[in-house]
Amino acid sequence: MAKGNVQLLGSWVSPYSNRVQMVLNLKSVDYEFIEENFYSNKSERLLKANPVHKKIPVLIHDEKPICESLVIIQYIDDVWTENGPSILPSDPYDRAIARFWAAYIDDKWFPCIWVILLSDGADAKKTAALEEFNKGLALLEDAFIKCSKGQKFFGGDKIGYLDIALGCFLGLVRLIQKMDNISLIDESKSPNLFKWAQHFSDDDAIKVVIPETEKLLEFAKVFVAQVKASGINK
Amino acid sequence: MAKGNVQLLGSWVSPYSNRVQMVLNLKSVDYEFIEENFYSNKSERLLKANPVHKKIPVLIHDEKPICESLVIIQYIDDVWTENGPSILPSDPYDRAIARFWAAYIDDKWFPCIWVILLSDGADAKKTAALEEFNKGLALLEDAFIKCSKGQKFFGGDKIGYLDIALGCFLGLVRLIQKMDNISLIDESKSPNLFKWAQHFSDDDAIKVVIPETEKLLEFAKVFVAQVKASGINK
Repeated sequence: MAKGNVQLLGSWVSPYSNRVQMVLNLKSVDYEFIEENFYSNKSERLLKANPVHKKIPVLIHDEKPICESLVIIQYIDDVWTENGPSILPSDPYDRAIARFWAAYIDDKWFPCIWVILLSDGADAKKTAALEEFNKGLALLEDAFIKCSKGQKFFGGDKIGYLDIALGCFLGLVRLIQKMDNISLIDESKSPNLFKWAQHFSDDDAIKVVIPETEKLLEFAKVFVAQVKASGINK
Repeated sequence: MAKGNVQLLGSWVSPYSNRVQMVLNLKSVDYEFIEENFYSNKSERLLKANPVHKKIPVLIHDEKPICESLVIIQYIDDVWTENGPSILPSDPYDRAIARFWAAYIDDKWFPCIWVILLSDGADAKKTAALEEFNKGLALLEDAFIKCSKGQKFFGGDKIGYLDIALGCFLGLVRLIQKMDNISLIDESKSPNLFKWAQHFSDDDAIKVVIPETEKLLEFAKVFVAQVKASGINK
């Protein structure tokens, strides 16, 4: 449903950008996707829209920019209230728990993925990151059991805020599984998250957003080499 | 007004704990304050209430723990809806802007305060942190002009989410001003934030929470020495 002019400055490879695309799709919001170069040679449009962080994603709604993916998806939920149920749980405590885990994922869990992706071979840094990643996964497996209350998603019978906060990283998780020939979300260790990942990826609003692993692999070969050459991951 | 049993695991010196106390006071919520040792010898009660981060503040409402200060203050706002107006702006865009700056303060601005506090003399690290701190202050001065719309607070005519997110650090700012004999929030450079800090500190719900500078100074002498001795700030 149209409600003003909506543009998203993003990138198909960015999980944070994917996060916003997923919520726009779930809420059936029409928008123009503007692919940005997120790593170098950033556009004037992006620098003007997000002068503080100079990062995607930026949602531009009626010419007003909103930055930071979790802030953006909350904004979409606040504005398009008529386009389906809220992505946040209706109970204040459940809402707090969803927000807590979303912050945990961004602050503690995702940085491990980044280290794993950029590490060469099985060095100590990578081993430590894998350990932290798995610790986080065990916490999230437990959180899923509590939040989902026996249903398919963290949000219960429908995809919600925490599903999106975590699920946007599935593309990168699959990329690492492919690159390193390992199983990160393993059916035996994380049976609930394993099933959740399948249900989540099968949703019509989601599956068009998660990058295909082969396409991501092609991109990653060039990108990871660039980052390593720049020394930014040291 | 009573609405179940409310306890706050916190510390009088912690800005994040102060943040929660401020909102509980603004909302006139009765609560029991439980002083915790936030740095070492953490209590079993704290470790059980926040097993993921093992940190204060933790709000315990009817025996259910809520962690992370921004999550907690949002929770208080969501639960005690009858205890005065919401701390968040009513307009979704203004709400997004308040959330954006609160995240900026925690992720980018506060870490500078920490470095300034723990640095010895005027080393390069401290100089860089002071520069970042001042850059942030200039951004927040500009944000204040936009958010306050000519009124006393970021939240307009009343103290709101962003006032609390920033104002909880005033105790530490004054401590550094005292310790280093410098002016951090300067009337000539940040005239709006200078006035805002006065208005904010004068509020009855706030002034009982911001730690007195002299008392904080006594604490800081011991604490900063401990942290430096531990090598954690290297």
